[in-house]
Parts: sequence; structure tokens; C-alpha cells
Amino acid sequence: MIKTRFTEMFGVEVPITCGGMTRVGKAELIAAVANAGALGFLTALTPGSPELLVKEIKKTRDLTDKPFGINLTILPTINPVPYDEYRRVIIESGLGIVETAGNNPQPHLPAFKAGGVKVIHKCVTARHAVKAESIGVDCVSIDGFECAGHPGEEDIGGLVLFPVTTARLKIPVIASGGIADARGLVAALALGCEGANMGTRFMATKEAPIHQKVKEALVANDERATDMIFRTMHNSSRVARNAISQQVVEIERRGGAKFEDVRELVAGTRGGKVYDTGDTDYGIWSAGQTQGLIHDIPTCMELMTRIMTEAQQIIRDRLDKMVA
Amino acid sequence: MIKTRFTEMFGVEVPITCGGMTRVGKAELIAAVANAGALGFLTALTPGSPELLVKEIKKTRDLTDKPFGINLTILPTINPVPYDEYRRVIIESGLGIVETAGNNPQPHLPAFKAGGVKVIHKCVTARHAVKAESIGVDCVSIDGFECAGHPGEEDIGGLVLFPVTTARLKIPVIASGGIADARGLVAALALGCEGANMGTRFMATKEAPIHQKVKEALVANDERATDMIFRTMHNSSRVARNAISQQVVEIERRGGAKFEDVRELVAGTRGGKVYDTGDTDYGIWSAGQTQGLIHDIPTCMELMTRIMTEAQQIIRDRLDKMVA
Repeated sequence: MIKTRFTEMFGVEVPITCGGMTRVGKAELIAAVANAGALGFLTALTPGSPELLVKEIKKTRDLTDKPFGINLTILPTINPVPYDEYRRVIIESGLGIVETAGNNPQPHLPAFKAGGVKVIHKCVTARHAVKAESIGVDCVSIDGFECAGHPGEEDIGGLVLFPVTTARLKIPVIASGGIADARGLVAALALGCEGANMGTRFMATKEAPIHQKVKEALVANDERATDMIFRTMHNSSRVARNAISQQVVEIERRGGAKFEDVRELVAGTRGGKVYDTGDTDYGIWSAGQTQGLIHDIPTCMELMTRIMTEAQQIIRDRLDKMVA
Repeated sequence: MIKTRFTEMFGVEVPITCGGMTRVGKAELIAAVANAGALGFLTALTPGSPELLVKEIKKTRDLTDKPFGINLTILPTINPVPYDEYRRVIIESGLGIVETAGNNPQPHLPAFKAGGVKVIHKCVTARHAVKAESIGVDCVSIDGFECAGHPGEEDIGGLVLFPVTTARLKIPVIASGGIADARGLVAALALGCEGANMGTRFMATKEAPIHQKVKEALVANDERATDMIFRTMHNSSRVARNAISQQVVEIERRGGAKFEDVRELVAGTRGGKVYDTGDTDYGIWSAGQTQGLIHDIPTCMELMTRIMTEAQQIIRDRLDKMVA
């Protein structure tokens, strides 16, 4: 066991989160993460409505008695999203843990506080982390350059971003991006974080509700097999490199790309349809640089047990002996 | 004290290197690094000729009895460089340690081996590290995305690059880029490395032979204050962000830049003239993302003492207690 301010705050055994992943953070995965002692997050918007989220929470609860949370990603959208309804579902669920992402969570904080819900806010810059602490969130999850999905536009590697952030905050910080094993977890703890978030690594587990071919691609790919797309639109996304992502990169390289220019390429494929169909060569799908550290498809329990065992070995049998 | 395979191999007390920095790796800094127990490298080409390198080595030896090495950076140049002469000086110096960088060091290895010189090869990709081991170097120093100077074109953060590399090599690996303090050193050790290289951090020491204004700029800048330039020329360089670097970025953003297009901007300023003049707003000069972790200008001895003390505290008082 590794005890940190994070494990204490959230009542879990393992200082690891499986943060919100659209179309991936579903009952079967999040319950498996919980049963393995870590903290997973259902993605509120994935089921499709607040009512369906209630059902997804019930389904998860039927599979585990341990703590889990809900991710609420707040973004500007064309079709209005009933965020207040989702917030109400999260509070009334009694789970008591939410992971907010995207926009400033401030409008939702009073209700969460009143409802006894602890808030982990995901951000990608140290100054947003400082701001999040100042408005009263309980914990911050900070995403570095290596991460899958949205690393922001500042390109600060976790090795620098984590210690810069932890030095400026009093609340616990979770390191996110670039971590897939015990070595990364211990590094994160050394850098001042109280836990580590893993996304890509949890996609390559038996319980992840995604196509086997996607999992096999994560194992086959190395650390170089990602592309950063949508940089020219100030909405950078790190995705698995394939023919489609390379076409998007090329369109952006020519300069002045707009989403319209690449819409046909990504149409019907963003939002993770590839995760269901397994057509990894066609769609655009998120994956982090940790692909280079992923060599198998274990159960969540096997993965957490391995990471906890190896983390203790790194601390006791490697670092301690170097000091001795 | 922290003992690793690196400290054992090179007979030093501190698992930290001050790798070759053109126009910065001079006698006063490298002797101070050595006297503080770490391993510094004079840059062979900075004095200007093999004969002047002999003098620089003598000057360093007059300042320290402890081990130090020579960096030999091998690059294609317009004016031929007498690499064989430099190699002879390195071997005949009896220092016994060389850091090679740039091109494949293979042509020089037989002579170094015969001369009893241990070779640390600097590289920026895991496959070059594997190649370096296969041709017989003794140690690899691997540079991640966060580093100052030349991170290569693959943009892999140290958090991922270090464990990917150490997992594939038997020889000791030194983590480079993104490290400026004890937190980063312990992270590097957790990620499987046997030591850490620091460049930007050593620039901000009392003994660094660079202008005080450059040192003060390193302290004032945060982690975001770098630009990656020359990407379009496949010769990416991470430099301190200023008006000139931003102009270069803008020229490259417009597409199809050639060195001719930016020659006037960087003319007379590359190669570190700014380090002498302190005109930090004008010239192009290297700096890494670790600027965000640098808050003072200590002596090398103060810096090494602090890092060793804090590294032991992180291992003993933080990580050990988390496991207990």
C-alpha cells in the first residue's frame, strides 16, 4: 500500500486515477478500477442524458462497493448540454466525488460544496491550477505535454509542469500524462504529486469497453506513434498516428486550416466511434506517448497489483539502496 | 551520498552531469562542478583549437583534483574541424572521460577504447541509444523534449523517453532535459536512470562564465518562456523566448523557411555571444523549460549540496513514509 494525501482524501488504496475518458469511462471499466483499489470516473456525458447517467451509476454500483466518481467536462457546445441536470445527478448520487474539466468550474462549486461533493479539477497549466485552488477545489489533476487528448497549447513536459505546479499549491495534485507504470508513479510522487492519472494505460486493460483491435494497437505502437492535431485551431489534441491523423497534420502544415477543412476526415470518427469498430487505421482516436510503455492487456486488478508491487520495489530496493 | 552505477563508473560522488555547453563549458564552471562532486564537461571546440583545448584542460586541472571530462560534438561543418586532433588531445589528457554528441561516434570509438577513455554518448531517441550501446559506448545521456538546445524532432517528454530507453539498455543511462533540482533527480532515478544531466540549471550558478543578466533572465523566466525554433529546418532548437525568437517562429509559421530567411536575425548571436554581452532581449540563446524551476543563482557547491540533501529527504522522508 502507498498512502498519500490523495488516498486519504478519497478513501482509496491506490494513488491512481482513471480520469474521465469520453466513451471509455463506462460502468465495466470504472467498477474494475474501483475494485482494484484506484479511483475511476464515469464520464457524465457518455451515456447520453442525465437519466441514462443515473442508470450508468446504478450499473457501476452493482459491480462495486468501492469509491468512484463522475467526470463532468464543461465545454462550449452547439447543442446546449443540461449541465445543471448532470450536476444534480452527481450530487444526488451520493458518490461524493466529481472530476471537472474544460471550462472554469466556479459556477458549479457552491452546489457541489453544499452537496458534500469533493471536486478534482483537471487543468493543463500551473496558473489554472493556482486559480482552481483559489476558488476552492479540493484537488487538481494536471495534464502535461505527453498526455492523450487535450494537453493545451503550452507544451510543458510533466517533468517540469508537475514540480512547478506542486510548488505553488497546497491542495493535493495528481500528475497526468506520460504515466503508465510504477516508474512513472514513483516519479510523480518524487515531483511532489500525491497520485497519478492514467488514461491510455487503462484503455489497454481487459475491462476497457473498447474494441480489442484498439487495445492491440496501443500495445503495438511505440512512444512516437502519436500526432498533435488541431494545433492551428488552438484546440490541440494528441491522437494515435495513422493515415487520417497524418492527413490532418499535412492540411494544418499548409497553414490556416479551419475545422471545416478537416471535417470530412474526422466526421463520424471523433468521439471515439473507432473505439467500438476497431478500425484503428481509419478514425481519429486519442492516445498518449505512454503507448511506448504499454506491452500487454492485463485486467485492472493485475495492473494495479503490479504497479503497487513495483512502486514499493523501486522505493525500497532501488532508491533506498542508492541512499544507503 | 547517492550511489548509482553512474557514480561508480566515473568515480564521482554526485549522480549529476554538467554536459557540454558551447561557450559555457569552460574551466571555471567545470572545475566548480567537479569540486562539488559532480561530473562536468569542457566543450572541446569552445577554446578554438586543439592547442587551446590543452590549455583549457590545464587551467581546469589547476582548479580541481577531481574527475571531469571533455565534450566532443561532431557535426557537419562548412569549415573542416580537426576532430582527430581533438580526439588525440582528449586521449592524451589522461582524463579518461569523453561525452560525444551529434553524429555517430563510431569512427572515434576504437581510439578512445585503446586510450582507456570511457564514452558517454548523448542522444535524443531510444533507438539511437540502443545503437550507441550496440557499438560499445559505456553510458548514454538521453535528452527529452524539455531540454535546452537540440531535443531532436520527435518530441518525447522525459517522463516517457527515460523509462522507454532504460528498459532497452543494459549500460547506465543519464536523464537529460527537464531536470533542475532534487525532485527531478529522484524522478529520473525512479524512471530507471542512473543520474541526471543539467544544463540550464548550471548556467544559473555563480561560476558559470556567462553574463549576470543572462543568469537573472533564467531566474525571472518561467517554464513557458522558451521557443522551439528551426523546426522547419529539421534542426529544432529550444531557446529562451524573446523578440528575436518570436520573429523566427513567425517566419517559420508562414512556412517554407530556410536558414537564409532568418540568418540576419540570428547572425552574430548564435553560438552564445549573448552569454558574453548579456543582451538577453536581442540574441538567440538556449534555455530549457527548467527555467520554471530556477529561482536563484547559487554556487555549484551550494547547488549540489542542496540537491543531495533534498534528494535524500524525498526518498527517506517522503517516499519511504508513503510506503510504510
